[in-house]
Amino acid sequence: MKILVLNGPNLNLLGVREPGIYGSQSLDDILAALGRIAEDLGVALSSLQSNHEGVLIDRIHQARSESVQGIILNPGGLTHTSVALRDAISAVGIDTVEVHLSNVHAREEFRRHSLIAPVALGQISGFGAQGYELALRALAGRRK
Amino acid sequence: MKILVLNGPNLNLLGVREPGIYGSQSLDDILAALGRIAEDLGVALSSLQSNHEGVLIDRIHQARSESVQGIILNPGGLTHTSVALRDAISAVGIDTVEVHLSNVHAREEFRRHSLIAPVALGQISGFGAQGYELALRALAGRRK
Amino acid sequence: MKILVLNGPNLNLLGVREPGIYGSQSLDDILAALGRIAEDLGVALSSLQSNHEGVLIDRIHQARSESVQGIILNPGGLTHTSVALRDAISAVGIDTVEVHLSNVHAREEFRRHSLIAPVALGQISGFGAQGYELALRALAGRRK
Amino acid sequence: MKILVLNGPNLNLLGVREPGIYGSQSLDDILAALGRIAEDLGVALSSLQSNHEGVLIDRIHQARSESVQGIILNPGGLTHTSVALRDAISAVGIDTVEVHLSNVHAREEFRRHSLIAPVALGQISGFGAQGYELALRALAGRRK
Amino acid sequence: MKILVLNGPNLNLLGVREPGIYGSQSLDDILAALGRIAEDLGVALSSLQSNHEGVLIDRIHQARSESVQGIILNPGGLTHTSVALRDAISAVGIDTVEVHLSNVHAREEFRRHSLIAPVALGQISGFGAQGYELALRALAGRRK
Amino acid sequence: MKILVLNGPNLNLLGVREPGIYGSQSLDDILAALGRIAEDLGVALSSLQSNHEGVLIDRIHQARSESVQGIILNPGGLTHTSVALRDAISAVGIDTVEVHLSNVHAREEFRRHSLIAPVALGQISGFGAQGYELALRALAGRRK
Amino acid sequence: MKILVLNGPNLNLLGVREPGIYGSQSLDDILAALGRIAEDLGVALSSLQSNHEGVLIDRIHQARSESVQGIILNPGGLTHTSVALRDAISAVGIDTVEVHLSNVHAREEFRRHSLIAPVALGQISGFGAQGYELALRALAGRRK
Amino acid sequence: MKILVLNGPNLNLLGVREPGIYGSQSLDDILAALGRIAEDLGVALSSLQSNHEGVLIDRIHQARSESVQGIILNPGGLTHTSVALRDAISAVGIDTVEVHLSNVHAREEFRRHSLIAPVALGQISGFGAQGYELALRALAGRRK
Amino acid sequence: MKILVLNGPNLNLLGVREPGIYGSQSLDDILAALGRIAEDLGVALSSLQSNHEGVLIDRIHQARSESVQGIILNPGGLTHTSVALRDAISAVGIDTVEVHLSNVHAREEFRRHSLIAPVALGQISGFGAQGYELALRALAGRRK
Amino acid sequence: MKILVLNGPNLNLLGVREPGIYGSQSLDDILAALGRIAEDLGVALSSLQSNHEGVLIDRIHQARSESVQGIILNPGGLTHTSVALRDAISAVGIDTVEVHLSNVHAREEFRRHSLIAPVALGQISGFGAQGYELALRALAGRRK
Amino acid sequence: MKILVLNGPNLNLLGVREPGIYGSQSLDDILAALGRIAEDLGVALSSLQSNHEGVLIDRIHQARSESVQGIILNPGGLTHTSVALRDAISAVGIDTVEVHLSNVHAREEFRRHSLIAPVALGQISGFGAQGYELALRALAGRRK
Amino acid sequence: MKILVLNGPNLNLLGVREPGIYGSQSLDDILAALGRIAEDLGVALSSLQSNHEGVLIDRIHQARSESVQGIILNPGGLTHTSVALRDAISAVGIDTVEVHLSNVHAREEFRRHSLIAPVALGQISGFGAQGYELALRALAGRRK
Repeated sequence: MKILVLNGPNLNLLGVREPGIYGSQSLDDILAALGRIAEDLGVALSSLQSNHEGVLIDRIHQARSESVQGIILNPGGLTHTSVALRDAISAVGIDTVEVHLSNVHAREEFRRHSLIAPVALGQISGFGAQGYELALRALAGRRK
Repeated sequence: MKILVLNGPNLNLLGVREPGIYGSQSLDDILAALGRIAEDLGVALSSLQSNHEGVLIDRIHQARSESVQGIILNPGGLTHTSVALRDAISAVGIDTVEVHLSNVHAREEFRRHSLIAPVALGQISGFGAQGYELALRALAGRRK
Repeated sequence: MKILVLNGPNLNLLGVREPGIYGSQSLDDILAALGRIAEDLGVALSSLQSNHEGVLIDRIHQARSESVQGIILNPGGLTHTSVALRDAISAVGIDTVEVHLSNVHAREEFRRHSLIAPVALGQISGFGAQGYELALRALAGRRK
Repeated sequence: MKILVLNGPNLNLLGVREPGIYGSQSLDDILAALGRIAEDLGVALSSLQSNHEGVLIDRIHQARSESVQGIILNPGGLTHTSVALRDAISAVGIDTVEVHLSNVHAREEFRRHSLIAPVALGQISGFGAQGYELALRALAGRRK
Repeated sequence: MKILVLNGPNLNLLGVREPGIYGSQSLDDILAALGRIAEDLGVALSSLQSNHEGVLIDRIHQARSESVQGIILNPGGLTHTSVALRDAISAVGIDTVEVHLSNVHAREEFRRHSLIAPVALGQISGFGAQGYELALRALAGRRK
Repeated sequence: MKILVLNGPNLNLLGVREPGIYGSQSLDDILAALGRIAEDLGVALSSLQSNHEGVLIDRIHQARSESVQGIILNPGGLTHTSVALRDAISAVGIDTVEVHLSNVHAREEFRRHSLIAPVALGQISGFGAQGYELALRALAGRRK
Repeated sequence: MKILVLNGPNLNLLGVREPGIYGSQSLDDILAALGRIAEDLGVALSSLQSNHEGVLIDRIHQARSESVQGIILNPGGLTHTSVALRDAISAVGIDTVEVHLSNVHAREEFRRHSLIAPVALGQISGFGAQGYELALRALAGRRK
Repeated sequence: MKILVLNGPNLNLLGVREPGIYGSQSLDDILAALGRIAEDLGVALSSLQSNHEGVLIDRIHQARSESVQGIILNPGGLTHTSVALRDAISAVGIDTVEVHLSNVHAREEFRRHSLIAPVALGQISGFGAQGYELALRALAGRRK
Repeated sequence: MKILVLNGPNLNLLGVREPGIYGSQSLDDILAALGRIAEDLGVALSSLQSNHEGVLIDRIHQARSESVQGIILNPGGLTHTSVALRDAISAVGIDTVEVHLSNVHAREEFRRHSLIAPVALGQISGFGAQGYELALRALAGRRK
Repeated sequence: MKILVLNGPNLNLLGVREPGIYGSQSLDDILAALGRIAEDLGVALSSLQSNHEGVLIDRIHQARSESVQGIILNPGGLTHTSVALRDAISAVGIDTVEVHLSNVHAREEFRRHSLIAPVALGQISGFGAQGYELALRALAGRRK
Repeated sequence: MKILVLNGPNLNLLGVREPGIYGSQSLDDILAALGRIAEDLGVALSSLQSNHEGVLIDRIHQARSESVQGIILNPGGLTHTSVALRDAISAVGIDTVEVHLSNVHAREEFRRHSLIAPVALGQISGFGAQGYELALRALAGRRK
Repeated sequence: MKILVLNGPNLNLLGVREPGIYGSQSLDDILAALGRIAEDLGVALSSLQSNHEGVLIDRIHQARSESVQGIILNPGGLTHTSVALRDAISAVGIDTVEVHLSNVHAREEFRRHSLIAPVALGQISGFGAQGYELALRALAGRRK
């Protein structure tokens, strides 16, 4: 089973950016730990972080031709503003889990509304880095 | 570690009620499977389902005196309407994970807004019965 | 044909409560008259009034196992606030007619919006106690 | 007792127009059946269908000089847009029952708001052609 | 100077319709009195009342070819709903005064918003039949 | 008959301020012309202009003890913001006509809503300085 | 192939009404030119302009019995206010193209929302008289 | 004089729940102190706390038959969500004072709107436990 | 303990202005009675009524240099419109109780929202002149 | 005449992505067919598809220095979210036609509002691939 | 060059009022420092602070006859509520710079909307006392 | 002191794009002039303009590792739409001044709301190219 982990704008700063909200692990730390769990679950992970909406969309399109079966997507600030990203997910028809490190429902009002969620399989928010692991288990569990 | 699984209105009909949306497992099936995972994780589970807002609030209050350390809460339709349930969670100060079987963000507009989420640790929606397992792992993982 | 007549909060005060709006017949008077019409139509009526949302939901669930074929529901103030009651009606899949004694569209703005109506067969409002009879005829007429 | 049955725009297409929503009886069929019930109830029916708002208003005004005691009004699409029709009903002071074939509360959001309902006696929606019969019984029942 | 007095839906019922709101003079009484004042002011009046939006629009178009220099328009319920009437006034480019018998700002919220007013010369409301006289004086006064 | 003409903020600049919108007559010119018409009508005028909300309210209160029978009020920018001015008019119970020089309905959206109008007798807008004359005639005409 | 060209309120004034917005060709000019193109495309055109909503609805109903295969509809001001016209189009089930001469999205806010568009095949706006030709080609192109 | 003190959801946790917002006295402490003041004022107090909306409504109904002359009601989270509780107060027609410990106007936006207040005699918020005393004095003072 | 009683616009008319809403005592009567209670409580009262927002703000500023420890403020119509008054209260940091004679929550919608309340200690509304006494007791009670 | 065809995010997936909504032709197929029509019309076409907002803006800027006279723009999901794209079109001042394959007015509410349309010449939606041809004819027709 | 510095309600408390938000310099300190810069720039400064809207408006009017060429205006709380102040600025036609000490966009939602800004030359917010200097340089720089 | 000047979409067209709104200086001209002032102030400037949101975010991230102490940001159209850009500024924690050439508060409604401003130090709008100089002085002045 092939799963793609996509991280959007500013998630390259994890561990540095407002650690009170986003935790102190770097994105590399998180992905390394996630890789070990994926191995246990027999899942092949690939990943990309980009601050460019277009790069994320291109990568989602490419996933379609690579037979990726699941996407773990933390869209960062694009969650609330990108119809183009939403359309990319609809277009490729790959099961997508939306992950947020912080509890978006407990922050500014505009962070409560996701353009992505209606076309995702589900949404996980508020569990920090652990959210990626939960998303991975959710996708892996569907294979059975 | 003691965790309470609370299910709100209509969740007693799981397996029966609109299986296209909510899946075909009964609540007892789900709780039995969850119990086996809890055992593996060294967690003591208790559970309650009620169609009565007041009974759910009473049970949350009681959890405080039982030293429950985590609550897995599927508030059903009360998610969108019960300030009293929200206040109960704030009042007892126990880490609470909000779970929804369906992807609430892909249904009627009014299901996108949760009164509970801002006082919960996090929210998991869209993974069917598996959502309870993810919530359990999220809470158990925090103990470490 | 079995039909359940459900009355929500404050309807036990009929005849007493603001008779200018709700009329001067007691709920027992209304149900007795309704029973006579039901007999003529060959319909078996059962009924419940409760000020407790949970009790109403429990009763709707029970109706499903009793093979009730129609519900006449006056949800009182829960009309505008209870997603849980709405979900109960969807869940059991029994034809439900929403009845209001007063013309809810001619009162406070918040009384114009019903959470129940979208999952009901239809809505009847403004005809006082006669509304229950119309609802009964509507349900009985569908049997043919 | 004299009752006027008024049908607004597009109701001349009943039986033809979207039968999944509006049923397969023609308006003539419905009025014929209604006429038989009216006879039983000792009520004299007259009726008009028009796609012209102005014609409907003129007819309501005329009803006043004919001593019509009740109006059964299905305003069609004018329900949501015509203050002029609403004012006509207020102006003549005749008891009016608003009828909708479909359950307007379960369709597009804009169909949930009626400009007519606040000046009507009551509203009946969702019972198809049977709705006219219920309205007739409601008006006839008030005479007693 | 030629002035057209146009009255929209339900104004034919003046004197009859809700006299507490609209006064007890008939439209004919009002127009007769207005005619006498027009004579004094050297103004030629013509007038039309219709319950049909289309007839009102046709009449406004015709006014253009008759070299009418001012329109006194009481649009009745169309005030709040007719973009077509608004466009007719813009299209012919004749100075138009919007008149309301009642103080529309002191009634239902929806009566406070006029689609006509932004394309009219001005608006006069709340003075009963006297409003037509004020409008006439306003138009006649501009000629000087 | 005693009538008070009250002008609010910035109306002292009439003739100077944006003449394209407000005309080229000064407030003194307007009041002088109005005085001549008042004399003809047998009405005693007094007037005040102030940029201070409090001064306007004080003057309205004083009018009550002077047996003023009508107020012509151009509240300027306070139209849309002063609940205190509105309450003053309600409190003294003197017939008040709200006048605006420009057609407030054809300008910025916020100018379309008047806090004063619901407690006034009526509103006249869009006729420039002539609006005061119309208001005077409206009040004088009520005496008969 | 039979196509009906329907023009709503005020379009009879084309060439006369605000030429800066709507162009200087009369409706007859436009229809004549359109007729020549239709001939080339092997399409039989019929047309109607009316300021009466009811006449337009009647004509749409009649189109159904004439086996008209496409409607080109410029609803004028009814675009934004007529649920009845919308329902007429749904009811007859004929492919309809909504045309606007001006770019409605660049004008007043209320002109951006069309009640018709959701039941039309598509919408063309901003191309002046050319819009009718584009609509004709769009409908003719579907026949192939 | 008989007065009923009603406390809604979560108020049983007073002294325990978020003491920074709600103070450190328990509900029993507060009621005991209130009882002493009531004695001085010659008032007979009874009281109930419940987390169940239905129980609160039942108790309000019962108050009617006990000739209770005043209700001190802290509805907790039901303040903002319960039309049924509001209707109960209207129905029994007993003078009711709404009390909130915290200043609800200085908290989340949704806490600023009370469904209860429009049918209460008055509202007191922000004075902690002292609010009950003020409510008691307000009711007792009306007896004179 | 020094307490300042501030009354805003139109409260000088108490006893005169709409006695059905505001009661029949004059402001002087109310302040005299309040003075007697203050004496009993060992509190020194000063007071001011003004129809001028600026005068009220100046007086609040002055209170700071006089070591006033509490303000009882009935802002009248400024309640809903004056950010400047709100900022004055925040700026001086004196405990302020907002008092309304009428139950503002049961009147026009715009009276339900107070700009002052979020920076006040608490709000008391609906108890007529008694409200000032309750506010005084609330402030005096905090001294202990 | 030089015309640029710009396609935004996800339009590279045409033929693959949700063919029920977007049709089964690839973008290359569409552009090839469009090229043949352009040749007939004597128009030189160039084209670009990109998933990157910035690339689209850069290309629009470049069009200015290439003397492109018309742009056919399908902005995809950027239609509803990109003020930057809108500003690019305003800035270069080239006639732009906005094209949508699907009828955006018949889909999710958020797709009904275009940020681009107010600065475009016009909008064409709902005609699938044919929409590009209509846009081309619209631009070519303006040259005459 | 003559420039007027106007400060609205509560700015006389600078240095005293909430120094965390507004800084610790008094208004006199700020104006003295600003005077020294003005001298360097060859600008003659005058200034006024008032808590009275009317006084501020009077002063703006007077500036017109004094040939003041620029106004630096910190309207305090009137920013969000005073149409009268806005109209005063439009009326005199003097270049006005709106200054806020705090970053109004980072505070309560209602502070984000300025009634003044649309008629000002520009707005400067968030730089504390330095904002006045920036405004002065902006105005002085335009003279060149 | 190191300061970064960032310009977003379409600002490369300065001097060319709508000079009535944005002025006739090119961006290079503005930056050259700004460089001279920076030299005087002892500030090292670097700058970037891009039409790509991602490039701007990457540059902001890089600024953090370069010890940039202040950012002057003109986000262009991204001001109103980019949560990602906002999050980038929060994440790096560098003092940022938002600059707009035009007075955004006097243009389309959607330009009045900035997603950036709440995380910026302050905002300067309406002063054309001079705005960059003011921002530079604001940042340089904070160093003292």
